[in-house]
Amino acid sequence: MDAALRQSKAVCPFMKKATAAGLRAMTTSARPVASPCGGTISKLQVLARRCPVMGKAMAVQSARIGHAGFPGVAGVAAMSTISGHGKAPKAKLHTSRPHEANAVEGSLFRDKVQLPPRLPVKSQQAGASAVPSTRADAHDAHGAKFDYNGFYEIELDKKHKDKSYRYFNNINRLAKEFPRAHMANKEDRVTVWCANDYLGMGRNPHVLKAMHETLDEYGAGAGGTRNISGHNKHAVELERSIAKLHATEDALVFSSCYVANDATLATLGSKMPDCVILSDSLNHASMIQGIRHSGARKVIFKHNDVKDLEEKLASLPLHVPKIIAFESVYSMCGSIGPIEEICDLAEKYGALTFLDEVHAVGMYGPHGAGVAEHLDFEAHANGKPRGTIMDRIDIFTGTLGKAYGCVGGYIAGSAKLIDTVRSLAPGFIFTTSLPPAVMAGARAAIEYQMSYGGDRRQQQLHTRAVKEALGARDIPVIPNPSHIIPILVGNAELAKQASDKLLQDHQIYVQSINYPTVPVGQERLRITPTPGHTKQYRDQLVSAIESIWQELGIKRTSEWAAEGGFIGVGEAGSALAETPLWTDAQLGIEGSGPIETLLEQEAERKVAMPAAAAAAA
Amino acid sequence: MDAALRQSKAVCPFMKKATAAGLRAMTTSARPVASPCGGTISKLQVLARRCPVMGKAMAVQSARIGHAGFPGVAGVAAMSTISGHGKAPKAKLHTSRPHEANAVEGSLFRDKVQLPPRLPVKSQQAGASAVPSTRADAHDAHGAKFDYNGFYEIELDKKHKDKSYRYFNNINRLAKEFPRAHMANKEDRVTVWCANDYLGMGRNPHVLKAMHETLDEYGAGAGGTRNISGHNKHAVELERSIAKLHATEDALVFSSCYVANDATLATLGSKMPDCVILSDSLNHASMIQGIRHSGARKVIFKHNDVKDLEEKLASLPLHVPKIIAFESVYSMCGSIGPIEEICDLAEKYGALTFLDEVHAVGMYGPHGAGVAEHLDFEAHANGKPRGTIMDRIDIFTGTLGKAYGCVGGYIAGSAKLIDTVRSLAPGFIFTTSLPPAVMAGARAAIEYQMSYGGDRRQQQLHTRAVKEALGARDIPVIPNPSHIIPILVGNAELAKQASDKLLQDHQIYVQSINYPTVPVGQERLRITPTPGHTKQYRDQLVSAIESIWQELGIKRTSEWAAEGGFIGVGEAGSALAETPLWTDAQLGIEGSGPIETLLEQEAERKVAMPAAAAAAA
Repeated sequence: MDAALRQSKAVCPFMKKATAAGLRAMTTSARPVASPCGGTISKLQVLARRCPVMGKAMAVQSARIGHAGFPGVAGVAAMSTISGHGKAPKAKLHTSRPHEANAVEGSLFRDKVQLPPRLPVKSQQAGASAVPSTRADAHDAHGAKFDYNGFYEIELDKKHKDKSYRYFNNINRLAKEFPRAHMANKEDRVTVWCANDYLGMGRNPHVLKAMHETLDEYGAGAGGTRNISGHNKHAVELERSIAKLHATEDALVFSSCYVANDATLATLGSKMPDCVILSDSLNHASMIQGIRHSGARKVIFKHNDVKDLEEKLASLPLHVPKIIAFESVYSMCGSIGPIEEICDLAEKYGALTFLDEVHAVGMYGPHGAGVAEHLDFEAHANGKPRGTIMDRIDIFTGTLGKAYGCVGGYIAGSAKLIDTVRSLAPGFIFTTSLPPAVMAGARAAIEYQMSYGGDRRQQQLHTRAVKEALGARDIPVIPNPSHIIPILVGNAELAKQASDKLLQDHQIYVQSINYPTVPVGQERLRITPTPGHTKQYRDQLVSAIESIWQELGIKRTSEWAAEGGFIGVGEAGSALAETPLWTDAQLGIEGSGPIETLLEQEAERKVAMPAAAAAAA
Repeated sequence: MDAALRQSKAVCPFMKKATAAGLRAMTTSARPVASPCGGTISKLQVLARRCPVMGKAMAVQSARIGHAGFPGVAGVAAMSTISGHGKAPKAKLHTSRPHEANAVEGSLFRDKVQLPPRLPVKSQQAGASAVPSTRADAHDAHGAKFDYNGFYEIELDKKHKDKSYRYFNNINRLAKEFPRAHMANKEDRVTVWCANDYLGMGRNPHVLKAMHETLDEYGAGAGGTRNISGHNKHAVELERSIAKLHATEDALVFSSCYVANDATLATLGSKMPDCVILSDSLNHASMIQGIRHSGARKVIFKHNDVKDLEEKLASLPLHVPKIIAFESVYSMCGSIGPIEEICDLAEKYGALTFLDEVHAVGMYGPHGAGVAEHLDFEAHANGKPRGTIMDRIDIFTGTLGKAYGCVGGYIAGSAKLIDTVRSLAPGFIFTTSLPPAVMAGARAAIEYQMSYGGDRRQQQLHTRAVKEALGARDIPVIPNPSHIIPILVGNAELAKQASDKLLQDHQIYVQSINYPTVPVGQERLRITPTPGHTKQYRDQLVSAIESIWQELGIKRTSEWAAEGGFIGVGEAGSALAETPLWTDAQLGIEGSGPIETLLEQEAERKVAMPAAAAAAA
C-alpha cells in the first residue's frame, strides 16, 4: 500500500472500509450473470465510472489529455495498485505508446488481456478473421477517430465466441391451427412448444371479436400519449378489469411489463428518500434494470430464501423505505416465490411488496389473478379477497402478452400508489398509448379467464402429462411446482443443437435458453404446454426428445444423480419442490389414475376444453 | 474550508477541480427541467449517490447507524460545509433528536426546508388537508416504519401545487368520423385537434385491412420475445420496409420509440469505452433517460446551436467515441434541427449521428422518410439516396405510432450497428414482440406513404391555412417551419382553462401543454392539423380560439411584441425561422393566391385528398 492509497483511505469511507482482498475481488469479478448489459466490465470499474471522483477524473482526463494517462489522479492510481496485477497498470498509465495506453484506458481495472497484433482499420472492417479481440482496440491510433465498426465487430465477436449470439427462428403461429405455425416458407409447418401464449388466448374468438370490432370503430392506433389524446374508454375499462382481477383500488397500463417494472421501480426507488430495494437473485432483467435506473441501494437476497431475506431486512433501520421485489413464477426454472412468508417479513420490517405475476396471471387462482390468488383459492372463489395473501401485496405487475395473448403490461395497487407512478414515471408519461384494439382484446381475455377456469386446468393437466412422460424416460426435467417444463442440457452448443434438431428433424419448435437468460452451464430447453397440446402433439414431443437425447448423448436424470445432482435434477429431496401448486382436488382429478389415461378418457368423451370454450363463444 | 475539505481536495480530482462557487451552485440547482424523474434532488446529491465514496458511505452508514449521523465521513461533512447553508447540516448530523436528523438524512445537500408541525400518521392518511409538505416527513418517528401513503400524498400534492398534475380527457377517436371523437358519453362528439395521428393513417383502409387479415390468420399476440417464438415474417417484413424507407442496411423494431431511444443510447453509451453523448437541450425525455441510463458522460448543447455544439466537440479528444443525439422536428415548438451542419461536425470530430425523426417520418420527403430525406428531395424522388444528407446519418429512430397511425418504434442503420443493439439491449431482448397485426398495419402504413405523397401535402396545406388564419387574428403562434402549431399562453392555469373551455364550450379538444413537457412560463396549446381538418373544422377552431383569447384576456402577438417578444413570438427576424420546409413548389401551389382560397377551389373540384386516397384503396 503506497502513500496515495493511505491518503485516500484517510478521507474516503469506501476505501477505509474496503479490504485489499475485497478490492482485488472487485477488479476481477464480473457483473451479475442475470444482467445482460454488464458484459465483462469489472465491479470496481462500474463503481468507479459512477463516482464523481473517479468517474469524472476518468472522463475529464481522458478528454483533455487523450490517452497520455491520468497524472495526478492519486486515488485511481492507488486503487489500481491493489489489483493482483500489481504495478503493471500504473506503469502503463505513463507510457507514451498510444496502443498500450489505450488498452489500459479502456479497461483500467480489468484483468490484463493479451493484445493481438495491431491491425489497420480497413482490414478490421473487411475480414471476420481479422477482428480484434478487445474492446479497447476500437480506439484508433492517437489522433485518429474512434472506429465504430471495429467496436461493433468486437462486441458481436464476443457473442459468437461465448455462444450467446442469437439466431432468431421465423415462427408464424397460426390462429386456426394452434399450436402450429409456419416457418419462412408458408408450407413448412411446425408445432410450437415454447411460446408464452400459455392458454391460446391469442386465437380466442372473444378476444379476436373484440379486436376486430374495436379496429373498425376506433382505428389502428391511440394517436397520442395518455395525456394528449391517447386516453380513452379502452384504457379506462382495461384498468378497471385489472384492478378487479387483483382486487386493488386501481391499475395502470404500460407498453409492456418490461416498461412497467423498469418505470415503477426506477420511479419509486429514486423518489423515496434513501430507499433500499431487496431483489431476489433470479429476478427478471426488467426489474434489474429498474433497480439500476432508480439509483437506489440494491440488496440481492438468495433465490426464494426467506432466511437470507430476513437477515438483510433486519440489518436495515426500520424507518428506511424498502421494496421487496420478487416474482411468483420464475419463468426459466418454474420455481414459485414464498409469497406469504415475504408478506410477513414485509409487514415486520416495514417494506413494500412488489410482486411480478407476469408468468402467473391467467394461470393460477379461481379467477386467474395469479399465484397470490391461488394461495387462498376458496376465499377468492367465494368472492372474499379481504384479509387474503393477495390483499397484502402492495404492487402487482403483470403482462397482457403471455396468458392473455396480446401485448402490454401493467401495475395494480392502491389508488395513491397508482396516481403517483402515473404522475411521475417518464416511461409511462412520454409514450404512445397501446392501440384501442389491443386494450379491448386484452380486457376481453382477462374477463374471459376470470369467468372460465377450464383453459388453465387443461394447461395444468397437459403439463403434468408431459412431465410424467419425460420423467419416465429419464429426461432431466428441472423439478418445480408450476406450468414450466425446463429440461436441463447444461451446455450452450448442445442446447442449440438439440433445439435445431427438434426443428429440422421433428418439426417441433423449442428454443434453447442460453446465457445471459440463464447462467453458463445451466443451458436448457424450456417447454410450455398449452390446452392445445393434445395427445398426438405430446407423444411426438416426448419421442422426439428421447431420440435427440440418445443421438446427442445428452445427460439423463440418473447421470446427473450419479454426480450428486444439479439445480434440482437428480437431487434427493426435490419431491416436495415438485408438488404441483394446482392440487388434484383443484383440478378435479382426485383419485383418478395416471394423467395420460385420464386425458384419453376425456378426449374420447370429446370434452376437450379448447373446443368447448370456442363453442361457448 | 476546513481541514477535511483540504484533505479531500488533495486526493480527489473532482474536488480539486471544483470551485467553492461551483459546488455551492450544485447544492441548490435542481436537475434539468426536461427530466421529470429528477424532482427536487440537488445535482451534488445526484453525484454523491452514484459515488462509491459518498454514495456507499451514505447508504451503509444510514443502514448501520440509523439516523445517528455519519461519524467519520470526512468527505461528506466537508462537502456539506461548502453549501451556503453553512454549519447547520453538520450540526444536525449529530443531533439526537430523531425528527431533524431524519430530515437531514433525506435531503443532505438540499436547501433547508421549513418543517410543518409533526402530524400523527393516522391523520396523514385520513385527511387531504393534513398532507405534510416535505418528502422527509414521510420518514416516520424514530423506530417507526416508513409512511408510504404519506410519501405518495406528498408527491401528488407537489404536482397539484405546481399545476403539473395531469387530468386525462377521455377521447375516443372515431375511425369513420375522423377527426371526430366521442367522450366518456358516446353521444358527446368533439373534434380532435391535438392527436399525433398526423395523417389519419389510424383509419386508413389499407392499414385496417392488413390488420384484420393478420388478426384472423395469426391471432392477437406474438406469443413471446423475438428470441423465443416472437420472431416472424411480420417483424422481418416491417424491418425490411423501414430499412428501405431510410435507405439503410437494416432496422430493428421496439415496443415504442421511447424504448428504442432509451435502449439504444443506454447500450451504446455504456458499451463504448469513455463514450460522450452530446445532447440537444430540447431532446425528448426518452433520449434523456437513455443517456442517463448509459452512465456515459453527457454534454448538453444549446438547442439547434451548431456553434455551441462545435465548441463542445472540439474540447473532446478526436479518438473518444461520441454520439450526437438530436431530433429533426422538435414536437413541442416545431423547430427543425440543422441536420446537414451536424453531419459536417460529426464527420470532422469523429462522432456518430443519432437522429430522432419521430415527428417527421411519414410527414417529410418524397417517401415520407423524414426531414433528412426532405433536404435532398429531388435526389430521393429519383431513387438516388447515396451521398445525400440522409445517407450520412448513422442511427435513425422513428415511431410507428404517430404519422403511421399504429404503435411501436424502431432504429435504422448499418447491419453491424443493428446487430449490436439487437444482441445487447435488454429493452429489446427481454420484452414481448409487437402483435403481428400491429406490425402488418405499420408496414402497410409505411408502404402506403412511401408511394403516395398526397396526405402529407394536404396536411401541410391545412397547417399553412390555420397558421395564416391565426396570424391574421393576432393569436401568438410560435413561429416554426414544420407542421406543428404551438400557441403561446405562458401560464399553466390559463392554458388549462383555455383547453377546458375549448372542450366544454366549443367541442374542440386541444390538450394544454404544461411543465414538465415545456418549461414553466412557456405553457401552450399545441395544435396538429391533419388531412381530415377541412374548412368547416378550421373555421370553427379559429373562431373558438379567438373568442377564448378574448374571454380569458390571453396575450396577443402584438402584446408579446410590445414587451420585446418571447421564444419567437412577436420577435423581429423570426420570418426566416417561419419559412415552411415544404416549399410552394413541393406543394404544387407556386404562384397561387391565399391558401384558404386555394383549398376552397380544391374542395369545389372534389379532389379532397383523403377521399381520393380512400378511393384508391
